[in-house]
Amino acid sequence: MSRIFNFSAGPAALPEAVLRQVQAEMLEWDGSGASVMEVSHRGKPFMQAAAQAEQDLRDLMQIPDNYKVLFVQGGATTQFSAVPLNLIGDLPGQADYAHTGHWSKKAIADAKRFTKVNVVCDTSDEGYKHVPAANEWTLSDEAAYLHLTPNETIAGVEFAWLPDSTVPIVADMSSTILSREIDVSKYGVIYAGAQKNIGPAGLTIVIVRDDLIGNFPDNAPRLLDYQVMADSDSMNNTPPTFAWYLAGKVFAWLKEQGGVGAMEELNRIKAEKLYAYIDDSDGYYTNPVQPNSRSRMNVPFILHDNSLDALFLEQSHAAGLHALKGHRSVGGMRASIYNAMSIDGVDALIDFMHQFKAAN
Amino acid sequence: MSRIFNFSAGPAALPEAVLRQVQAEMLEWDGSGASVMEVSHRGKPFMQAAAQAEQDLRDLMQIPDNYKVLFVQGGATTQFSAVPLNLIGDLPGQADYAHTGHWSKKAIADAKRFTKVNVVCDTSDEGYKHVPAANEWTLSDEAAYLHLTPNETIAGVEFAWLPDSTVPIVADMSSTILSREIDVSKYGVIYAGAQKNIGPAGLTIVIVRDDLIGNFPDNAPRLLDYQVMADSDSMNNTPPTFAWYLAGKVFAWLKEQGGVGAMEELNRIKAEKLYAYIDDSDGYYTNPVQPNSRSRMNVPFILHDNSLDALFLEQSHAAGLHALKGHRSVGGMRASIYNAMSIDGVDALIDFMHQFKAAN
Repeated sequence: MSRIFNFSAGPAALPEAVLRQVQAEMLEWDGSGASVMEVSHRGKPFMQAAAQAEQDLRDLMQIPDNYKVLFVQGGATTQFSAVPLNLIGDLPGQADYAHTGHWSKKAIADAKRFTKVNVVCDTSDEGYKHVPAANEWTLSDEAAYLHLTPNETIAGVEFAWLPDSTVPIVADMSSTILSREIDVSKYGVIYAGAQKNIGPAGLTIVIVRDDLIGNFPDNAPRLLDYQVMADSDSMNNTPPTFAWYLAGKVFAWLKEQGGVGAMEELNRIKAEKLYAYIDDSDGYYTNPVQPNSRSRMNVPFILHDNSLDALFLEQSHAAGLHALKGHRSVGGMRASIYNAMSIDGVDALIDFMHQFKAAN
Repeated sequence: MSRIFNFSAGPAALPEAVLRQVQAEMLEWDGSGASVMEVSHRGKPFMQAAAQAEQDLRDLMQIPDNYKVLFVQGGATTQFSAVPLNLIGDLPGQADYAHTGHWSKKAIADAKRFTKVNVVCDTSDEGYKHVPAANEWTLSDEAAYLHLTPNETIAGVEFAWLPDSTVPIVADMSSTILSREIDVSKYGVIYAGAQKNIGPAGLTIVIVRDDLIGNFPDNAPRLLDYQVMADSDSMNNTPPTFAWYLAGKVFAWLKEQGGVGAMEELNRIKAEKLYAYIDDSDGYYTNPVQPNSRSRMNVPFILHDNSLDALFLEQSHAAGLHALKGHRSVGGMRASIYNAMSIDGVDALIDFMHQFKAAN
């Protein structure tokens, strides 16, 4: 066996160069005579690695000084609760949510436990095939914030634009963070589970503007309070140290690759190649998403005859192209092509798809 | 540099044999051609590893079938909130808490956000030097549960017994789980952060009796609901897969060592050796805890002259005995001797203490 091309939607492929560093340091990290997993988060070596990781992320995303960067646990799903708890000073209040896929649907359901949710747009009836234009949205007057899911991992629907908003924009960037350049100053909160473009599952990044911190209620779990985490440099309790360390290695790797701009260019090329091949396959393969809303990270594609799905999965797996099975709600296949997926991997997938089409 | 003897209180030493397995599998796990960090938690390989980890823990602790075992995020500190939210059907209600150290103090403070707390005993005035006998406790009539911290990591105070209780006992076992045999059926909930005796930080184990599940309020973060996690085999959202995998390796290692009974015997020997040396040092080293309440896991010791502390730390570090600095609230030194610390490590510490005493 050797390393395969891994199209998993998440937990997803990590840069092999990073894994090799982690492997080399597994028993003795940084001259400590111990694994990074075995040292105190409050000791100088880990504190330095943690601070460097934050600084590298700040550099990569050009995060303004008036934003805090938090390294927390619980996944993006926990943020579905943390966002209304932190951002609505006087619960229940009200918040605007765009419903453009599976994950925004879940964010809405959890937000409703705490606040009144106004859904500004909803594409569930069509099965999530596009992002409605902002002039079609029904914004409320009373919203504390506007919540978006800029990339929907399952349907493969991505915002190519950001709406104007008079209230803070909150974005679940789990499957798009660091894949393209964004202007952080246009957001109130950005959060992302690590397990696509950052590192291992079990770490969540929260980037929050200073002035939105400090409204957490007394009768909610304290560790979800952005203030508690900001005041403690995310170390009010023991953080997920290994995941944080590994995220730092991914951030350093991204810098070596030329940063987010360079990754965006690669991601654009990878996605364009794959969509172009699908669109030119005379209907053998199809992608159900409107072209202006297609994801650069998650590319679902349907075979013209779904009785071939099992064979496609079996043969692609044998060819070293793994985790291509689509989500059950969409069917067919899905290729997740995050930062760690090389152009070679996408080329290998296209070659396989071409051969499969010729043979079947 | 080579591997040192690591007395860190947590994140703490892991078995070297486990780390070597993790290192060997870092790029290609289980014939998958990918790291365990890079594969879906919903794929068969990870599901099998996760289920095996749970089964091994069930075997090790002889967990009865009417208990669920949850693998969650957020640390034991998040459980300080999750426990009252899950166990008190009709908030605020009331709960009993024993205050025997730093961590029970924090558990009490967080519980007060949700419920009325009755403190059954409180040794903060003496600086946490013993566990008061149960006949000195002031139990309430209305408590939904009784919360204990069977081992206090900072003060080094451990329960050698379990009180009789008419209400479910909830125990924060972060720093004692798997170190000695216990009767799980005597507890309502056992929870433990992984980073002492289980695996890397970022994973928390919750062992909860079936009948205590199902009382979670509608207006609290959903992922803290034991029901949600039990119904989804801890996979309602993406779990911390690497930490879970590594915990499984530690459980397998524990079985190879002979299980919890064998570890308990080793832990008893390690602790007795170290306390005996301290007590026989003619006051050069002292442990402040009453003998019947001394921890087998965390052994604080004070030098007779604290101006020697810096030299002790410098020379012990140079001798390959790391992370011996005591918590600032106790001062002096602390040797944490969890399951992964060998008798050789304790012997090396005693030898060093002996030489240091002779030289200074």
